[in-house]
Amino acid sequence: MTVHNEALRDHACLIVHGPDRPGIVAAVTALVTRNHGNILSLDQYSENADGGAFFQRVVFQRADLTAAIPEIEADLAATLDEFGMQWSLTDQSVPKRMAILASTSDHCLLELLWRHRRGELPVTIPMVISNHTNTADDVRAFGIPFFHVPSQGPDKSDAEAKILELLTGNVDFIVLARYMQIISEDFLDAVGVPVINIHHSFLPAFIGAAPYRKAKERGVKLIGATSHYVTKELDEGPIIEQDVARVNHAMTAADLQARGAYVERAVLSRAVQWHAEDRVIRHGNQTIVFTDRP
Amino acid sequence: MTVHNEALRDHACLIVHGPDRPGIVAAVTALVTRNHGNILSLDQYSENADGGAFFQRVVFQRADLTAAIPEIEADLAATLDEFGMQWSLTDQSVPKRMAILASTSDHCLLELLWRHRRGELPVTIPMVISNHTNTADDVRAFGIPFFHVPSQGPDKSDAEAKILELLTGNVDFIVLARYMQIISEDFLDAVGVPVINIHHSFLPAFIGAAPYRKAKERGVKLIGATSHYVTKELDEGPIIEQDVARVNHAMTAADLQARGAYVERAVLSRAVQWHAEDRVIRHGNQTIVFTDRP
Amino acid sequence: MTVHNEALRDHACLIVHGPDRPGIVAAVTALVTRNHGNILSLDQYSENADGGAFFQRVVFQRADLTAAIPEIEADLAATLDEFGMQWSLTDQSVPKRMAILASTSDHCLLELLWRHRRGELPVTIPMVISNHTNTADDVRAFGIPFFHVPSQGPDKSDAEAKILELLTGNVDFIVLARYMQIISEDFLDAVGVPVINIHHSFLPAFIGAAPYRKAKERGVKLIGATSHYVTKELDEGPIIEQDVARVNHAMTAADLQARGAYVERAVLSRAVQWHAEDRVIRHGNQTIVFTDRP
Amino acid sequence: MTVHNEALRDHACLIVHGPDRPGIVAAVTALVTRNHGNILSLDQYSENADGGAFFQRVVFQRADLTAAIPEIEADLAATLDEFGMQWSLTDQSVPKRMAILASTSDHCLLELLWRHRRGELPVTIPMVISNHTNTADDVRAFGIPFFHVPSQGPDKSDAEAKILELLTGNVDFIVLARYMQIISEDFLDAVGVPVINIHHSFLPAFIGAAPYRKAKERGVKLIGATSHYVTKELDEGPIIEQDVARVNHAMTAADLQARGAYVERAVLSRAVQWHAEDRVIRHGNQTIVFTDRP
Repeated sequence: MTVHNEALRDHACLIVHGPDRPGIVAAVTALVTRNHGNILSLDQYSENADGGAFFQRVVFQRADLTAAIPEIEADLAATLDEFGMQWSLTDQSVPKRMAILASTSDHCLLELLWRHRRGELPVTIPMVISNHTNTADDVRAFGIPFFHVPSQGPDKSDAEAKILELLTGNVDFIVLARYMQIISEDFLDAVGVPVINIHHSFLPAFIGAAPYRKAKERGVKLIGATSHYVTKELDEGPIIEQDVARVNHAMTAADLQARGAYVERAVLSRAVQWHAEDRVIRHGNQTIVFTDRP
Repeated sequence: MTVHNEALRDHACLIVHGPDRPGIVAAVTALVTRNHGNILSLDQYSENADGGAFFQRVVFQRADLTAAIPEIEADLAATLDEFGMQWSLTDQSVPKRMAILASTSDHCLLELLWRHRRGELPVTIPMVISNHTNTADDVRAFGIPFFHVPSQGPDKSDAEAKILELLTGNVDFIVLARYMQIISEDFLDAVGVPVINIHHSFLPAFIGAAPYRKAKERGVKLIGATSHYVTKELDEGPIIEQDVARVNHAMTAADLQARGAYVERAVLSRAVQWHAEDRVIRHGNQTIVFTDRP
Repeated sequence: MTVHNEALRDHACLIVHGPDRPGIVAAVTALVTRNHGNILSLDQYSENADGGAFFQRVVFQRADLTAAIPEIEADLAATLDEFGMQWSLTDQSVPKRMAILASTSDHCLLELLWRHRRGELPVTIPMVISNHTNTADDVRAFGIPFFHVPSQGPDKSDAEAKILELLTGNVDFIVLARYMQIISEDFLDAVGVPVINIHHSFLPAFIGAAPYRKAKERGVKLIGATSHYVTKELDEGPIIEQDVARVNHAMTAADLQARGAYVERAVLSRAVQWHAEDRVIRHGNQTIVFTDRP
Repeated sequence: MTVHNEALRDHACLIVHGPDRPGIVAAVTALVTRNHGNILSLDQYSENADGGAFFQRVVFQRADLTAAIPEIEADLAATLDEFGMQWSLTDQSVPKRMAILASTSDHCLLELLWRHRRGELPVTIPMVISNHTNTADDVRAFGIPFFHVPSQGPDKSDAEAKILELLTGNVDFIVLARYMQIISEDFLDAVGVPVINIHHSFLPAFIGAAPYRKAKERGVKLIGATSHYVTKELDEGPIIEQDVARVNHAMTAADLQARGAYVERAVLSRAVQWHAEDRVIRHGNQTIVFTDRP
């Protein structure tokens, strides 16, 4: 049975993107109107006027949305497919299903569970999978299933196979909440849903192990975090959100790490929320993010 | 002769607002399209679905805009007037003419002149009027005419009459850059263009004289500034922008005032820029501000 | 049995304040040194050189601190009492005992419990008292005692008497986490420990009921929160911390309230932390706050 | 003739740093006291209790400071030299002399001149040197000498020699305001005063040419700037200050660069102010910065 958010009943989110062409905004808004949609918000971005890409997000209200979706989709296909535009139509009252993969570190995991519990993340969480057991009780206290899949052993493909079994068909996207394991290309291909990661970021960057120690030695005044979609290039996928916090000379490497954990929690939460609200459109290695930041 | 910003040649900004009705976004975008406009950005806000007000800002590119404006305006009138919608169409390459009224305090005045000089404010500044002469040399060093209109005397209507004479027909909006004089209702009616003011703001508010001393005595941790349109209710007009800065116990009342001056400069500059870019729509005692804040 | 924070073993915090006089900083640091203290941090503030007040916070490490406290206190009394200086010496490894008074609204309550659970607040929480029962399960899930003391009835003194009974001797300070009841002067006198409150703040202020609706109608661009010590003047006590969040025209009064709840959580948490770390010194209706903000 | 800031008359700033040892804070404060100094502010930082470095900044008021400096310095030498402590004593009413080296880009240069003009930077500016002439009129309009030293040619040592001639004996520190030339090791040795630089920073870093284009292609959400002391390692010297600004998908590479210029101006200004106020202590490749940020 599908969980519904009654406050968003009959709210649809339409995402359109593809090659820009004259009149595309008018065509999309006319389509919404002739399908009896009442536009609540509209965001739009044209890469450039001459042959760039075009992106639009429209949220509209439409009575009896569930029943109407097939005919709206037929109209979308008829209107947009010939121009090579991609589109997706989602019922905003149906929350996306989010799996969390975690490891020993719990700050990002618990932040997500906590925000979800407070009604601040429009998702359901069918499961948390960890390669350690230390967070099992915490997760289950939120009423969320916890599965332990150890990642030790000579071959990680066993672990990935077990994780795939758990995830397949059950989730709409995956969050790596400090999972700390490299995800294989095969896994990414097989799982078939977006995977969001979080990692620390510095100005300048510090490559390799012990980045907070290096940041301390370098005397940086800011530490940050980046949330991005996972691609085959480790930590190089499209960035969704970034932020920083101020630090100073009096803070130890451990203090920097604690401050960094705060930034990671906030950045990952925003990235997850925007993804869940269909505010993020991938475009090559970039993202278009129609945020709700005032 | 009209000054043109070549980078914005053939860019038009269309503002539409009025009672919401089904299909209004589609109607406006269709109008832009049939007038050969290429939509560059679109912001839209519906107060509420049932009978609230609707606001839209569309920036579009249209070859030979200057020549086409009359026919686009005719189409706008034919399409929108019957529904009681208000609209305005502006050529973004023509900067608005901004007069500044100032007094002895120079921080807001010089900030505006300085940003203008750096090309950061899309306006021309035909004149600065002050009731003191201390900033005359500074203003003229920027190549801008300075007029001295003293406000002393039993009757301020003389001063206002002189100011009106200078302004009438020459400016599109007026900025009170710490002008410190109460503007009469008659002046507002006669001048007929928007007037933007800046004043300090606190949490909580401190009424009357010496607000920084009171803020110091109260031990506030934030001081702020508010920029708004001037209406007959002093300091009660529609708010355009607000911001705050952090202060602490070690700062004197003079330090608070200096910090407050920084906030005033930043807040007024943003308000002026957004007004000049037609990003602010007045709606009763509120504003809709389609900012470009990322 | 006293709970100890091992990381802060043998760390003492000395607060000195009173009339400024030449050589006071040297006298206090000499005292710490002759008592074998190793100064870890030192903050100091002189209101003004001529007869103002002086404030100092010194954190020092001293082997066998517990055993040494009586002799250090004797030295403090001998050195400072004759000059009318007030002082307090606390063992930082002993967390303060914090009671929380709450009502139906849970955002501030749960934020404090959650941060405490993560080890981010150096306090123990011997009890939560609420005039409603809706948060009982949540509180007890954190392993913290919950007491229900209804505040209905013609006479609130009964409820206050029961609360006093629960608190007396058991707590070092009290936090009103959206308690929404006016605290009587008698209660404040009787309870004898600091009481910290949180409330929303706006620029400008909105007096009376439904402040978020008024803020929406006024079109404010910022909403804020203030945390302060409770005194006999309602909401007028010494301010500890304030902050704001940006809002815009598209947010409903309910959105403003939700955003306001975030600010309240953050502001109250910082105020509580700084109080618990002896970083806040009251001085008339002001506070000196030696923050650790980088 | 030395320029004096009357508001800081008789204010001294004492910086002490070196190996930590018990009682050092008490020893320094006792020294100030016995030399009739009234401590106005005191900042202190101990790297760690066991053999780390110690840093202290004391600002004190002392009647007839100018006359007393030799005897205070004698006391400092007698008290601190034997422990291997370094110290410096400066009269805060004497502003430091700051030279600016610039190139075609004027945003950092003009920001410094502008802030100086407004009394916000406690320095004098004896000269601006540029390898181009485009800013000459602007600089001279501020009443500041401008020298043109071209850097073209096969051998840059000629240019550096001319710059050295202009600077030697005339300045207390140098600011590279987007100077864009690599400073030779020989020049750094010969000039003998601190050199402060500003450059853009990103998360992640983008090496080499056209960093803003690369940042755009990577879709970053933040761009930043770093100000640091120049050492033999290009852009690797001790960091004084860093900050970032938010950007989004709709901004072009040129927009990012414009936004970056804002951040550079703010970061460099703060670094210069803190250096000028003796708030920055170099320690290996790090800095201790006792900021006045509230």
